[in-house]
Amino acid sequence: MKTLYELIAAKRDGGELQVSEIQWLVEQYTRAKVTDYQMSAFLMAAFIRGLTPTETSALTTAMLKSGTTVAVKGLDRPLIDKHSTGGVGDKLSLTLSPLLADCGIAVGMFSGRGLGHTGGTLDKLEAIPGMKVFHSPATFGRLLKRHRFAITGQTARIAPADKKIYALRDATGTVESIPLIVASIMSKKLALKSDGIVFDVKSGAGAFMKKQEDALALAKALVEVARAHSLPARAVITNMDQPTGRMIGNWLEVIETVEVLKGGGPADTVALTLELSSQMLKVAGLSDSVCSIQGGISEQLRSGESYESFCRYIKACGGDTKTLERAEQRQERAHKVVVESPASGYISVLDAGRLGFLAVKLGAGRRAVADKIDYLAGIELHAKIGGQVSAGQPLATGYASRSAKLADFEEEFLTCIRIAPAPPEKPRLVLARL
Amino acid sequence: MKTLYELIAAKRDGGELQVSEIQWLVEQYTRAKVTDYQMSAFLMAAFIRGLTPTETSALTTAMLKSGTTVAVKGLDRPLIDKHSTGGVGDKLSLTLSPLLADCGIAVGMFSGRGLGHTGGTLDKLEAIPGMKVFHSPATFGRLLKRHRFAITGQTARIAPADKKIYALRDATGTVESIPLIVASIMSKKLALKSDGIVFDVKSGAGAFMKKQEDALALAKALVEVARAHSLPARAVITNMDQPTGRMIGNWLEVIETVEVLKGGGPADTVALTLELSSQMLKVAGLSDSVCSIQGGISEQLRSGESYESFCRYIKACGGDTKTLERAEQRQERAHKVVVESPASGYISVLDAGRLGFLAVKLGAGRRAVADKIDYLAGIELHAKIGGQVSAGQPLATGYASRSAKLADFEEEFLTCIRIAPAPPEKPRLVLARL
Repeated sequence: MKTLYELIAAKRDGGELQVSEIQWLVEQYTRAKVTDYQMSAFLMAAFIRGLTPTETSALTTAMLKSGTTVAVKGLDRPLIDKHSTGGVGDKLSLTLSPLLADCGIAVGMFSGRGLGHTGGTLDKLEAIPGMKVFHSPATFGRLLKRHRFAITGQTARIAPADKKIYALRDATGTVESIPLIVASIMSKKLALKSDGIVFDVKSGAGAFMKKQEDALALAKALVEVARAHSLPARAVITNMDQPTGRMIGNWLEVIETVEVLKGGGPADTVALTLELSSQMLKVAGLSDSVCSIQGGISEQLRSGESYESFCRYIKACGGDTKTLERAEQRQERAHKVVVESPASGYISVLDAGRLGFLAVKLGAGRRAVADKIDYLAGIELHAKIGGQVSAGQPLATGYASRSAKLADFEEEFLTCIRIAPAPPEKPRLVLARL
Repeated sequence: MKTLYELIAAKRDGGELQVSEIQWLVEQYTRAKVTDYQMSAFLMAAFIRGLTPTETSALTTAMLKSGTTVAVKGLDRPLIDKHSTGGVGDKLSLTLSPLLADCGIAVGMFSGRGLGHTGGTLDKLEAIPGMKVFHSPATFGRLLKRHRFAITGQTARIAPADKKIYALRDATGTVESIPLIVASIMSKKLALKSDGIVFDVKSGAGAFMKKQEDALALAKALVEVARAHSLPARAVITNMDQPTGRMIGNWLEVIETVEVLKGGGPADTVALTLELSSQMLKVAGLSDSVCSIQGGISEQLRSGESYESFCRYIKACGGDTKTLERAEQRQERAHKVVVESPASGYISVLDAGRLGFLAVKLGAGRRAVADKIDYLAGIELHAKIGGQVSAGQPLATGYASRSAKLADFEEEFLTCIRIAPAPPEKPRLVLARL
């Protein structure tokens, strides 16, 4: 057995560590026998030298084992998980969960809060007055059995080593490493004992992975570690150059969710909901499910029935479903600024990264952990990439509960877009599947 | 100006940092505004990606500036410093200081304690009863002016950033990096305002640099940083495959020092003393000094006068010079074990690294910072590499104040040596000069 110094030095020099060595390192770190500064030296060495698939899988297992796991017993159908690497306007967890619950599988997810410029499913759910998002394993199981879907915040008992390591990486320049990202994601995902998982790996201006090759590498590594843990997995690389749908911001995204679940909503949000839903049915082995026989999940979505499923779930979690009925009315309470197009032409750039940060600035996200979210804050897009606009036509509306927040909105919004004289190439929604 | 995250990430990705960025990083770390774990991530990145000469020099300056410097005013001759990278049986600081004080320059050194398997000048001096080795800058200056040489322990006010960073490196697998080693050495060396410095870079089994090419790279980098700080510098790469001289251990090395200063002593200790002395005279611009005119420093050494200079200095520091007169008698108080040669032949290996650790085990060095040194503990070698021995002839004597410490000495000593039927190639003492 190597000493800690030798173990760090081995990774520093590009060697491969034993599974037992990685297990030991994470265990000792969780017990504070290995210090933060020793772990951060290891993480930097791992960042620069990389981790092999075996090492990545071992790190995942070690972090998973640092906490508890949740198994839901007595479900009459496969339990499928979905993970998005984080985007702007990405409300797909909300749209696909009730939809799939009506299509023969159960959807269970441990979700997170917004991070950086990206939104978080928990924050979106909490935009609904009264909504509780943290459930005990028992309640989570009950919700799942009754509603066929359930979303809960992750407790401190899930992969505590990952939480500790993530905080360290965030302070030491070791975030953007595919093996470290994969181990972090998978240590939490594996804590929910599911029957399959679909990864939605975002790529582009608004994603953590700007380049498609990086997104592809991340997707491959995620699928690899899932399968190494005997979890059936599929991945989709989706385009995050522009935001998903028309709405960015917590309540605004609830509005769009309701629209989609009632059979309407923007074409891209609907298309991505269908794409991920069909991947989730496939990973469950149910491509010939009731839904697809009866004309497909698309038909199910258009029926609007999933909206009722969504409302029943919200109500069960303490959420006020009356606000859902009058969703636009509630949004009207916010101050707003409409940005008009400065020129005629076609939208060629609608930078999801910048728009995400702008939404955070309006109050839709946190800049520090202690910050409070303004649930009504956000951006409504009136046109997307490829859309033809005339000078003076509304491009977007910015919302915030305090008017001062909107002072620079127009100027800043205009730095996020570009209007070209000719129509741009139509952006693809799905870049790759694996 | 980069954020801390960006600064760490830039080095992580192999970029070169600005001088002002390195200065800022070290300043903030000294003030505990940058945490240990952030610094250790930076150090690992610097270890793997390397530092350019400009970065190394900037790190040196920043660590130097974290503390005070010592300037001795009113000296009538150049003040020359010497630094050894650490060896076994290396008592050259003690032999050359009084010698050069009689040859037209002043020798001033901030010395250290034993580290790992290597000895430290302060420990050797402290082997002399009553000897004080920590002097205030004022006393250090007075000693220098009166004796033309002075050796002092480094106070906590010299390069505190280096002390903090060194402790971190020692725990995080980032010790063996040439730029980091150079910055650490030079931040302390530059704290004494001298007129020139000679580096004795050890290479071989008993040195931190096992390979000559690494020793050469270290020597070059040391000279480069010294010159970048306008300090005239020379370097010698010396052989540390076998120990220097016959004696390893604190009091034993004082005995050998006295022998050399009286005009005797082992040939290699004498030759290295002359080599380093002439380099120090050269770096002072005094190659045509009084000594060399009067037949050279070698003549001065043989005169035995430098022993008187040494005694006057020891007395001025509170040391009992009577013990020096009866140095062997004092050593007789220790328990001893004589190892006889198991075979006839020629000594072909006398591993300085293993012998250093063996001496530490006898009590000549510390395994933990709080350990007490047994000043009488150590090893006396009766033959060196190339020496012809007959079966049964004494090879070495092990000494320790407690007999139990010597229980395994014979067995362990025999693992440090090899006896060959034919004489080996004669080892070179000086491998390179620059």
